[in-house]
Amino acid sequence: MAAKKLRVHIENTRNKAGIFHTLPAHWAAACARHRALARRIGEVSFGWDGDVLESTLGDADLVIGVPARRDDLAVRAPRLRWLHATSAGVDGVLPLDWLPRGVIFTNNSGAHGRKAEQYMTMAYNLLNSRMAAIMANQHRHHWEALFSPSLTGKTAVIVGLGDLGEGAARAAKKLGLKVIGVRRSAQKNRYADRVVTYRQLDRVLPQADFVVLAVPLTAETRGLLSAARLDLLKPSAGVVNIARGPVADYGALEDRLRRGRLAGAVLDVVDPEPLPPDASLWTTPNLIITPHISCDDGEHYIDISLDLWFENLARFLAGKPLRRRIDPQLGY
Amino acid sequence: MAAKKLRVHIENTRNKAGIFHTLPAHWAAACARHRALARRIGEVSFGWDGDVLESTLGDADLVIGVPARRDDLAVRAPRLRWLHATSAGVDGVLPLDWLPRGVIFTNNSGAHGRKAEQYMTMAYNLLNSRMAAIMANQHRHHWEALFSPSLTGKTAVIVGLGDLGEGAARAAKKLGLKVIGVRRSAQKNRYADRVVTYRQLDRVLPQADFVVLAVPLTAETRGLLSAARLDLLKPSAGVVNIARGPVADYGALEDRLRRGRLAGAVLDVVDPEPLPPDASLWTTPNLIITPHISCDDGEHYIDISLDLWFENLARFLAGKPLRRRIDPQLGY
Repeated sequence: MAAKKLRVHIENTRNKAGIFHTLPAHWAAACARHRALARRIGEVSFGWDGDVLESTLGDADLVIGVPARRDDLAVRAPRLRWLHATSAGVDGVLPLDWLPRGVIFTNNSGAHGRKAEQYMTMAYNLLNSRMAAIMANQHRHHWEALFSPSLTGKTAVIVGLGDLGEGAARAAKKLGLKVIGVRRSAQKNRYADRVVTYRQLDRVLPQADFVVLAVPLTAETRGLLSAARLDLLKPSAGVVNIARGPVADYGALEDRLRRGRLAGAVLDVVDPEPLPPDASLWTTPNLIITPHISCDDGEHYIDISLDLWFENLARFLAGKPLRRRIDPQLGY
Repeated sequence: MAAKKLRVHIENTRNKAGIFHTLPAHWAAACARHRALARRIGEVSFGWDGDVLESTLGDADLVIGVPARRDDLAVRAPRLRWLHATSAGVDGVLPLDWLPRGVIFTNNSGAHGRKAEQYMTMAYNLLNSRMAAIMANQHRHHWEALFSPSLTGKTAVIVGLGDLGEGAARAAKKLGLKVIGVRRSAQKNRYADRVVTYRQLDRVLPQADFVVLAVPLTAETRGLLSAARLDLLKPSAGVVNIARGPVADYGALEDRLRRGRLAGAVLDVVDPEPLPPDASLWTTPNLIITPHISCDDGEHYIDISLDLWFENLARFLAGKPLRRRIDPQLGY
């Protein structure tokens, strides 16, 4: 007797950009790329902002996309075994007290590394080339030859070595930078010359020409790059944040940029997003703001994401532990 | 009997940026790096804008830096055997009708490749990430998530495969781009997937996601990227110029950027330089202007240049043909 086919619900959010919407065409293309696995799936429903949620949760085995309404899931979704977040950061749904016991919760880490590497390749060069000043000069029609040294041999301190941090480290190594990784454990990484734990962060910050924030936002990482830590940096150093805004103290960062105590920053994340028009960050000198686009493939985000999901589905069906599982205690 | 020591004159131009001035400290450091060769050199003089030129040219064997006054050099510098330009482009002193027969003329090609690679690594990403639009949005305090695809697999057509073009090609290959090189001969290059001659330029332009201009400015290359050739490009393509402004028709380029017929451009060179404050290029949408800084190491330009000069000095002393010799007919 064939195994019962799995019932899948895909929950979309209209409020998110279109590149993050999983449409029936994406699903069909992914099933065509993963035929054998797709045969194990029965009915699939697509919902938008909860519109069909109550009629589908009752018999859904697997859900892709965290529903906005998460109360009482054990009762509303009695068959649910695996819930998958289509983003890497799950800080928006912490704490995980709503997650029923026994339900596996995974994130979309792994879908962002390639774009993160490309963005970081650009960001190191933007900082090193003084591009914020050059573009400000362009805006005021001012020609001034601002020269810059070679990047080769400079040092990047990369905080977090997950999908994003490893992308930042790969970019750095290809540019000939020295890489110091900072993570919970000092476990080696092939793109880092050296890996230290958070306890040693303050000792490596003074060596940084670039500090890259690539950690999940948790209670532990909130405010991690504090005023005191910014003051450990060389005045010639630059900061990049591809994590979440609250990981750094932006008030302190802005102050140091305005005083020339820091050379520059490239921020892809702020708090809140969108950044309000009257925010003083917009006009901070030597600061480049990008609108949270650093690590998302604008063409194939969902294709990449579904490939990772199917890879995990194979593990699920084989009874193996899933990859990218969120630890409810750590929050990532 | 020891060979007669060589008399060297180093001619500087105050009008050039400080990073291009060869100072006694640079010279002493280079001599320390090349001790054996330095022993073959006798007196060395440093001049500024011709101030000591007439008293030194008379017995100079080697001159570094092309003097502003170049008439009658055969009489004024009867012993001169080798004149070295401290820039790569010698378009400013063409035609070479002033160069006495028998005097070797070299340029500083080779000093720019590493920075060119870094700049191009940034430029491909600037175009692909729509950074001109993102920075314009920052200027008007406007948050708009402009996503972009991955760079991987896109095609760069690189016109010129000398020091700069090869840097552009190395950058492209490291980013996973396909590289089509265009040069006088279809001679292979290890950083290009394919090399074609200028006669095939019009056939490869329609394939380009990025067109990079990296040729010397000569009578042949003036106006090379013409209006007609710009119209061979995909509307999604971007143009980068690290060569000389007049290699492209900037009027036509600006028109196509303003009409949205081209996606973007990054120009490190314009004509004239400095670009006048009222030039319409400054405000052209999706255009990034950098002030002719792409390929010059702001820290070690002279150190790198003198190392290349000493490498050629070894060849000179050994009676071997010098590298980076300018062909008076070709003009580069």
